[in-house]
Amino acid sequence: MSINYPTGSRRVSHVENTMRTGKTTKKALMFGKRGMGLEEEINLANDYYLVNHLAVIHKKPTPVTIVKVDYPARSAAKITEAYFKQASTTDYNGVYQGRYIDFDAKETKNKTSFPLKNLHAHQIVHLANILAQGGIGFVIIKFTSLNETYVYPAKELIAQWQKLNGKQSISYDEIVGRGYSVPESLSPSLDYLKAVDQYFEHLN
Amino acid sequence: MSINYPTGSRRVSHVENTMRTGKTTKKALMFGKRGMGLEEEINLANDYYLVNHLAVIHKKPTPVTIVKVDYPARSAAKITEAYFKQASTTDYNGVYQGRYIDFDAKETKNKTSFPLKNLHAHQIVHLANILAQGGIGFVIIKFTSLNETYVYPAKELIAQWQKLNGKQSISYDEIVGRGYSVPESLSPSLDYLKAVDQYFEHLN
Repeated sequence: MSINYPTGSRRVSHVENTMRTGKTTKKALMFGKRGMGLEEEINLANDYYLVNHLAVIHKKPTPVTIVKVDYPARSAAKITEAYFKQASTTDYNGVYQGRYIDFDAKETKNKTSFPLKNLHAHQIVHLANILAQGGIGFVIIKFTSLNETYVYPAKELIAQWQKLNGKQSISYDEIVGRGYSVPESLSPSLDYLKAVDQYFEHLN
Repeated sequence: MSINYPTGSRRVSHVENTMRTGKTTKKALMFGKRGMGLEEEINLANDYYLVNHLAVIHKKPTPVTIVKVDYPARSAAKITEAYFKQASTTDYNGVYQGRYIDFDAKETKNKTSFPLKNLHAHQIVHLANILAQGGIGFVIIKFTSLNETYVYPAKELIAQWQKLNGKQSISYDEIVGRGYSVPESLSPSLDYLKAVDQYFEHLN
C-alpha cells in the first residue's frame, strides 16, 4: 500500500488505548511491566500487530450513556454527566489473515477454575451470533496466579455455559485441554495471535 | 445454534444504539422516519440484520476521554468530566457471510460531489490497513438532497484521496460509477447489505 502513514500514528494509538483503560494504566505505571493488566498487554500486542501489518484489532471504546454536555464558548464540548453502560458485545474485534476475529479478555486469580460470573449472557449470545456468521470467536483467559494465558474457543465456552447454565466455573483442566496456550514472548509480551494460529491450524 | 436468547435482547440492542446517538434520536422522534439521520437508519438496519441472523454489525461506542468520576455511596458511578475524542477507526464493523466488514457513514447536502473534509486521514489509513488484511472496507455516502445512498469501496476512496491529496471533493459521477446504489426498501429502510451483495459479486 503506497498510502502515506501520518508520523506518530503509533504513539497516538497507544495513548488512546491507555486513556481508555484508566485503571489498568495506573497499575502499569505503578508496578511496571510485571504488574501490567491483561487488557493493557492486549492493547500493546494490538499496537504491535498494527504497526507490523500483522492484524488490525482494536479495543472498542468504553460505552457510556451521555446525559449532559456543556458547550463553553471557544472551548471543547465538556460532558458533565454520564454513566458507564454494560457493553452489549465483546471488547475486542478486528481482522486477521482475512478472518473476522472477536473476543473478550478476562483474568482470574483462581488456580483451578474460571468462574463464569466473569461473563454476561449477552456476551455469550454475541459470540454465538459471530460463529453463526462464520467469524472466529474466543475468550482470552489469564490465570494470574499461575501466569498462564489461554485462547479458549467460543464454541467450547458456549457448550460449557449451556452445560453449567451460566453458573459455577469452567475447570482449569478443561481450558488447558481445549484451549490454546499463549507462549511466553518479549515483544509483544502477550503474543496471543501465536495461540490463534494454532487454533486456525486445528480448524483447517 | 441451540443457545437460549434472552427475551427482549432486540429491544436492549435498539435502546443502546439510540442512546449512543443522542442527536440523531431526538431528530428521529421530532420528524419521524422521513427526518431520520443516516446513522439512525444504519443502526436500525443493523438491528434488523442481527435479529434475522443475516449479519452481526455494530456501531462502536462514541470514544470519550474520562477525566473525573464520582462514586456516590449506594449509587452508580457518575462521570462528571469527560471530553469527546476523535475516533481512530471507522464507526462500524462486524461480520457478514464470513467476511470482515468495516465502514463509516457520511451524509452530504451537496448534489454534485462528496467533500473529502467529511473524512480524516487516519480513517483512510485504517481502511487501507483493513484491505491489506483481506477485510472489506467501504464508506456509505448519502446525498440527502437527492435521497440517494451509495456503498463506495475503500479501494476507490483511497485512490481518490491520494489523487486529491485529501482535499477537495469526489464527484457524484465517480461515486455513482464505481459505487453500489442502496435500493429503496421498507424494512429496513436502508437495506445497505443489498448494495454490499452487489459489491461482493463484483469481487468474485
